[in-house]
Amino acid sequence: MSIDKLFNPETVAIIGASREEGKVGHTVLRNFVEGGFSGEVYAVNPKADKVLGKKCYDSIKDIPEKIDHAIISVPPKVANKVVEQAVKEEIPFVTLITAGYKEIGEKGEKREEELKEKLEGEDTRLLGPNCLGVWDAYSKVDTLFLPDYKLERPPKGSIAIISQSGSFGSSTLDKAAEIGIGVSRFVSYGNQADITETDLLEWLAEDEETEAIAAYIEGVKDGRKFYEKAKELAEEKPIIVFKAGKSESGSDAASSHTGSLAGSYQVYQGAFKQSGVVEAGDVEEFFDITRELAYENPPEGNKVAVITNGGGYGVSAADHIDESDLEVAEFTEETKEKLKDILPDYGSPNNPIDVIGDADAERYEKALEIVSEDPNVDMLMPIVLLQTITMDSGIVEVLKEFNNELDKPLAASMVGGDYTNLHLQNLEHNQVPTFRTPKRAVKALEGLYQYKERNK
Amino acid sequence: MSIDKLFNPETVAIIGASREEGKVGHTVLRNFVEGGFSGEVYAVNPKADKVLGKKCYDSIKDIPEKIDHAIISVPPKVANKVVEQAVKEEIPFVTLITAGYKEIGEKGEKREEELKEKLEGEDTRLLGPNCLGVWDAYSKVDTLFLPDYKLERPPKGSIAIISQSGSFGSSTLDKAAEIGIGVSRFVSYGNQADITETDLLEWLAEDEETEAIAAYIEGVKDGRKFYEKAKELAEEKPIIVFKAGKSESGSDAASSHTGSLAGSYQVYQGAFKQSGVVEAGDVEEFFDITRELAYENPPEGNKVAVITNGGGYGVSAADHIDESDLEVAEFTEETKEKLKDILPDYGSPNNPIDVIGDADAERYEKALEIVSEDPNVDMLMPIVLLQTITMDSGIVEVLKEFNNELDKPLAASMVGGDYTNLHLQNLEHNQVPTFRTPKRAVKALEGLYQYKERNK
Repeated sequence: MSIDKLFNPETVAIIGASREEGKVGHTVLRNFVEGGFSGEVYAVNPKADKVLGKKCYDSIKDIPEKIDHAIISVPPKVANKVVEQAVKEEIPFVTLITAGYKEIGEKGEKREEELKEKLEGEDTRLLGPNCLGVWDAYSKVDTLFLPDYKLERPPKGSIAIISQSGSFGSSTLDKAAEIGIGVSRFVSYGNQADITETDLLEWLAEDEETEAIAAYIEGVKDGRKFYEKAKELAEEKPIIVFKAGKSESGSDAASSHTGSLAGSYQVYQGAFKQSGVVEAGDVEEFFDITRELAYENPPEGNKVAVITNGGGYGVSAADHIDESDLEVAEFTEETKEKLKDILPDYGSPNNPIDVIGDADAERYEKALEIVSEDPNVDMLMPIVLLQTITMDSGIVEVLKEFNNELDKPLAASMVGGDYTNLHLQNLEHNQVPTFRTPKRAVKALEGLYQYKERNK
Repeated sequence: MSIDKLFNPETVAIIGASREEGKVGHTVLRNFVEGGFSGEVYAVNPKADKVLGKKCYDSIKDIPEKIDHAIISVPPKVANKVVEQAVKEEIPFVTLITAGYKEIGEKGEKREEELKEKLEGEDTRLLGPNCLGVWDAYSKVDTLFLPDYKLERPPKGSIAIISQSGSFGSSTLDKAAEIGIGVSRFVSYGNQADITETDLLEWLAEDEETEAIAAYIEGVKDGRKFYEKAKELAEEKPIIVFKAGKSESGSDAASSHTGSLAGSYQVYQGAFKQSGVVEAGDVEEFFDITRELAYENPPEGNKVAVITNGGGYGVSAADHIDESDLEVAEFTEETKEKLKDILPDYGSPNNPIDVIGDADAERYEKALEIVSEDPNVDMLMPIVLLQTITMDSGIVEVLKEFNNELDKPLAASMVGGDYTNLHLQNLEHNQVPTFRTPKRAVKALEGLYQYKERNK
């Protein structure tokens, strides 16, 4: 089944479109009315004539047009009834935001069973319940009931995020907006009464706007199916997973959070590895590795060249590389000779290269050029300290051009405050993966290398 | 010898006070003239009459007053000569910014030997060479030759930073300013021709404005002395170390960076542990652990209570805790009963507590109060997601008050974009340690626990 109408519907209906500001249905309706969605929007609320300028219908069946995607946020007691109507109207996609299903225990489990029965054998596909739903940067479908002053929407881009946890998902979206990372689609899928993470992976793998898929998972619905699909898909498009519920306490917490059986982490870890999926260790790595994989090509090998104007960071970067699956590249004699020509007398032509604190963007560029041509170098890791007198904004242009022309992957890093972060965002907007610490750049390159190794 | 005149001089002289903007001596002079330093400032430059409105003297000996702290930034060829003059004038403290000493190889090593000879047996103490020198939040001594639009100076506070690497040190200062972390003193000490990291530790341990000392170290000058002093001092005041040059490649890089023999990391690691020093794994942890130790009291034990309105983060926090030296606390039956009263039916009274996505600041506060009284809980870890409709700025007041009244240490975390970060900075300004991810909060609490364990 095509992904099209979930993410790119021509008509949507918001059922439970409350008049009251702050209510879920009200916020969702406003997202569609004010957020740039170009299709038709219908509001359903039997108690109101109009909400946000939209005529309200008494029920789905009164809407004069065929609906592609219905978003339901009504109280749990009536939610299944409303889904039943949507099924009857043959609406292809329903997002059921309403909570109060299997995540609340026995009573909810019964409700979820009933929900599943209503969907069985029907054409309607359901996302949720107990979810935030879909945000799409291109079509502007936005079922997130979180106000945009609190949760900024990121720019259009090539990263898809799917999340079993609403809070995890939405905060990562907010974080993406802050850093300026472009996102294609976002899905918080909740209890997976119908649509599972595997369905979403399958759809997003075909999606032309998406270059990499990042998934937060507590427990997958059907392990075997997930493994097989991931194996098939990861070769084509990077999949990055942050698995929560790895430890005993975490696993206990997961079962009361999403009702997931988090299962043995060893089994997951093995499955990720064999299926070509790359794992992230926390929420920062989740982003770091994902954008590295979205922006950069896989490396030939694991040898990294470090170029810095801050010697201390060169030293600690070498430590971080040694602690990872990567290696500090050994330069050829030719490279060393060339480096000697451009560095001050006391500069060292060994890796990590310290271009010295008085380097300007030009010297930095020359060093980058020289090492990028070294056959022993598979990846580049420029660490730029913008606090020095001589290093200026010119370095941003250097890194941009360099990243565009270079086949070898790159992960830049910059450590500092507001002035530094402005440059960092500029680079990020231009798809030069740039991290706030060298360690994070190493982790991102390691993820890229693991992706290549696991999918050859 | 007292620390006073290095950090808090009544008179300073800037030798090499260039007319040219962008030059080191010019920037340093401007820092003193425009930066709020309340003592007398003298400029030395035989080629100029006035720089930045200050009369220029031909040499140190022409200055009519006794100088407490001379800052020298002249070319390496004449630097030793100038130091000799300062010694002759019995200036108690000299900061020698000039580079071109042992870090550049043979020629520089000779120069450094000569420098040491000039200091031998004299009262003058020298910081450097090849350093940024001192920044003091209280006295406004500022020898950093980095412009303040590039390197923001942080607010006054209780953390002292000492760094063998200028770039590492200055970028952390810049980062502190960005987050709003208060700093007392900063020292980039370079080659340690005279004043060593151990001297600085000793001084800062006595400093009333300093609550915790963070040190970036590649190789210590005198291992035995460092170990003994650290052991003596760490009991009184937390010392946090980020050691670079741990691995083979890192150690090689360190020797060409600061000419340090980085030495066996195993030896360092053992010495840190036994002397009560806490280690940070990278530049972010360096800050995270330091401010946790500066702001919070050590815990009684290692049991953590996690309270969150974002269930997914509760799950992953439990994982991070299980991976650390800490444990997820098991609540008493009394606590569980009390939690049941304030949580929705489907909320779980187990740790991590999910107060559910519809929680407001009030429900959150009640949960915090209940678990903080549980005798099985040693530390609190609130994870707040501000993206939800019901969670508002009220949570900032809750956490502030809570942190003030509570004996048990706390490490908050918030994940998000600009809106979230504003609240995070507000908390940080009020000395509530607040981190950008739950994993970083766990690492900070672990550092606090390790400090307690290593110093009992």
